[in-house]
Amino acid sequence: MKWQIILKVQGLLLIILSIMMIFPLLFSLYYKGNDTFAISLALIITLAVGLLLAVTCKVKRNIKAKEGFIIVSLGWILASLFGGLPFYIHGSFGSYINCVFEAMSGFTTTGATILTGIENIPKGLLFWRSLTHWLGGMGIILLTIAILPFFGIISGHLYKAEVPGPTKDKISPKIKDTAKILWLIYTGLTVLETILLMFGGMDLYNALCHTFGTLATGGFSTLNSSIAGFDNLYIEIVIIVFMYLAGVNFLLHFYLIKRKFKDFIKDREWRFYTSVLLIAITAITLNLFLNNTDPHFMMKNEISGEFKNNIFMALRAAAFQTVSITTTTGFCTADFNMWPSFSRILLVFMMFFGGSAGSTGGGMKQIRVLIIFKKVLNEIKKMAHPKAIFYVKVGKNHIPQPIVSQVTGFVILFILLFSGVTLFLAFMGYDLITSFSASIATLGNIGPGLARVGAVENYAFFDPLSKVVLAFSMLLGRLEIYSVLLFFYSITERR
Amino acid sequence: MKWQIILKVQGLLLIILSIMMIFPLLFSLYYKGNDTFAISLALIITLAVGLLLAVTCKVKRNIKAKEGFIIVSLGWILASLFGGLPFYIHGSFGSYINCVFEAMSGFTTTGATILTGIENIPKGLLFWRSLTHWLGGMGIILLTIAILPFFGIISGHLYKAEVPGPTKDKISPKIKDTAKILWLIYTGLTVLETILLMFGGMDLYNALCHTFGTLATGGFSTLNSSIAGFDNLYIEIVIIVFMYLAGVNFLLHFYLIKRKFKDFIKDREWRFYTSVLLIAITAITLNLFLNNTDPHFMMKNEISGEFKNNIFMALRAAAFQTVSITTTTGFCTADFNMWPSFSRILLVFMMFFGGSAGSTGGGMKQIRVLIIFKKVLNEIKKMAHPKAIFYVKVGKNHIPQPIVSQVTGFVILFILLFSGVTLFLAFMGYDLITSFSASIATLGNIGPGLARVGAVENYAFFDPLSKVVLAFSMLLGRLEIYSVLLFFYSITERR
Repeated sequence: MKWQIILKVQGLLLIILSIMMIFPLLFSLYYKGNDTFAISLALIITLAVGLLLAVTCKVKRNIKAKEGFIIVSLGWILASLFGGLPFYIHGSFGSYINCVFEAMSGFTTTGATILTGIENIPKGLLFWRSLTHWLGGMGIILLTIAILPFFGIISGHLYKAEVPGPTKDKISPKIKDTAKILWLIYTGLTVLETILLMFGGMDLYNALCHTFGTLATGGFSTLNSSIAGFDNLYIEIVIIVFMYLAGVNFLLHFYLIKRKFKDFIKDREWRFYTSVLLIAITAITLNLFLNNTDPHFMMKNEISGEFKNNIFMALRAAAFQTVSITTTTGFCTADFNMWPSFSRILLVFMMFFGGSAGSTGGGMKQIRVLIIFKKVLNEIKKMAHPKAIFYVKVGKNHIPQPIVSQVTGFVILFILLFSGVTLFLAFMGYDLITSFSASIATLGNIGPGLARVGAVENYAFFDPLSKVVLAFSMLLGRLEIYSVLLFFYSITERR
Repeated sequence: MKWQIILKVQGLLLIILSIMMIFPLLFSLYYKGNDTFAISLALIITLAVGLLLAVTCKVKRNIKAKEGFIIVSLGWILASLFGGLPFYIHGSFGSYINCVFEAMSGFTTTGATILTGIENIPKGLLFWRSLTHWLGGMGIILLTIAILPFFGIISGHLYKAEVPGPTKDKISPKIKDTAKILWLIYTGLTVLETILLMFGGMDLYNALCHTFGTLATGGFSTLNSSIAGFDNLYIEIVIIVFMYLAGVNFLLHFYLIKRKFKDFIKDREWRFYTSVLLIAITAITLNLFLNNTDPHFMMKNEISGEFKNNIFMALRAAAFQTVSITTTTGFCTADFNMWPSFSRILLVFMMFFGGSAGSTGGGMKQIRVLIIFKKVLNEIKKMAHPKAIFYVKVGKNHIPQPIVSQVTGFVILFILLFSGVTLFLAFMGYDLITSFSASIATLGNIGPGLARVGAVENYAFFDPLSKVVLAFSMLLGRLEIYSVLLFFYSITERR
């Protein structure tokens, strides 16, 4: 393992990051905000460090698998350390830990914020905050679909590439080509949603910010009251549709473009993901309606208005929150912390399910949940027929045993880490519901949880150490845990 | 599959059950309680139905594996249906669902009660209630160590029998002999604890009832305030020691008797179980002490007394509650629902760990937790060395892949069922903490949970349907889930 090669890639990454800071700078100049200096200085520092690393580190060979993991983990950490600079220099985000927390929350597409008054922040900084989502979302898609497989990582969805069958990945085998196609899809969806949101009355700035938050399944908004602040059914529907699309494996969008609708429809993870969403929306709608619950819309006209039980209003709130939470976006139109226990717990479970593999969504990923359901069913069948051999099948494909084993290992590790972060937060003195919901809301890259981290709350009240742990939890969740743990394992392993 | 053979065994079981009812009858007669008629009538009904089934059903061949599962599941259900008869006929336990809940809670060694005023119940009935623990505890040891392996069930601890090595089970290979030895150990421990408790000032009746509750890791007490009611440090220490012993694999007690101390000490599950307990006790003691928390002893003199922070009092409360909860007993000396979040959550996690395999303890079992920890560690190592092959090792023994697979399947199924019961309770309108803690407290066969099912509370307030689901959850937990699910799978499976 050579640190030179790792640092060189980090340098290139920082250079890209500094170039990206030009966009918030433009918005800052356009809106004449007081954040121009902060963004400019951050840009210069990031560029300088990036150039220094890129120039001084010499590289003579290709990247090895283990180095790849370190590059990825370190990349996300450095991006957050430098990405938080504009916030820190401006001063409106408070301590540097706050700024790194916010940047990590952005790059990991979590969307948990430490801001208490979002509307007071200059627009350039808020644009940068949303742009970190978009960059992180793109990064994770490239990583999981285009890059990680070549380092030997078997991601949940990759069973398709492992076994012959009709759903086998037919995108170009070359990384560069795949990456290009994915960039095009991601950018295409971005342009489309931005235009559609502008039709709904948003200006370009707001449309872009919310598009970034949607497609990256991030959840940062430019308003304290999130999507509720627009109080516009059309905007809600557009965002629901694009959150849903962002939670689909991006390979499937490629099928759509190629008009291979059959391949799209046949995909078992997509079917599972869609069914789970429909079932959860129905259950929560009925729960709200039958319990005569005010959905607690966060819109201004709802606060003064009297509550009348209405199944369409229940559906409106349930559909938006379920899609937002399951895809791990975290946008809000209603304060679901006020909903009945059943809806609240169901939403927490949905946080574990998360998006599809190869999407920008977090959580454990739908395909993994599907595989463990099938595995458990198999174990029961095995008891009835001890001598028979059962394979885990998804659609017509047998999932090889090592992949099933890796998937169950991942699920258990995910639950262990969830437990660990929960225990830590409880140890720091936070109440039970806040502790476990903040734990899954960060590990699953969702953002809002329950109780003190609920839809109308934020993460500002946590102590600095807890903020560091929560930021690390986001990173673990985003990079699918293994690569981060491997990073530490590699450093500590004795030969 | 022949129903005749299944029903005949059920008949024999009911006959044994009716014979066991003689003991509470004797106590009822001795204390001249008003429960003599209820117990007598229940005894006669149970005996009559038992004889009817045993005589009318003809059996010509041995029991097959699948029939074995049904016999076991149905056995526990019938025992609860008939075991609840004395309570129902007497009338002091309320509805028949209440009575079956209480009997199921007894036979599954859960110890969750629907009684609000335990001291008002006649002593014969309370003795029967505690005796159900003892019978259930014995049943589960016989089942998991002596009987199930012969039906092809690979229980967590049974890897020892599967692989050669120094810890291989050396008890007689014949079921009857094994069963006999286990009976002797169980009875021996019972006599010993009863005598030790009587030394502490308990009368025979109380000593027996609490011994049953301890050795079965049950938790029913004859007092509303549980062990706190005796306010006696000696009694607490005796019960801590015997709860601990009840959570150890009973095969290890056999080693102790044979003076094979080395084999005892070498056992990896025992080491893990003991380490987990020591770590948890230390953590909770420090948490209570450093947070300046009143342990909330449920003893009368504590209620009026002023609280002074004292590390020995913290240790006294922490040691008792940690051992009680981890071994899934559920006796209480302090109201741990009033403890800081960290201690509460840690106790909830301990509920998942549970006792050792082959003990009377519930939960997921220590060996399974140990195996999944090792499995997860392996998956991380695999990422660093993709071409190397790693085996899950416990001590010097490799755990074969099918067993690792079954263990992970079990753990995931356990978590899924926990989630399912939690969702159901939330759906019925109970609050979040009550829902999830009642779910694990029943599935793990513990008894007390948090919030409305906390140490000073009971299960009386649940609606009838929830009581049925909770009773079923106890059964699922007690029979290690698979056998119960297989029961339904066998019935519904189409050929």
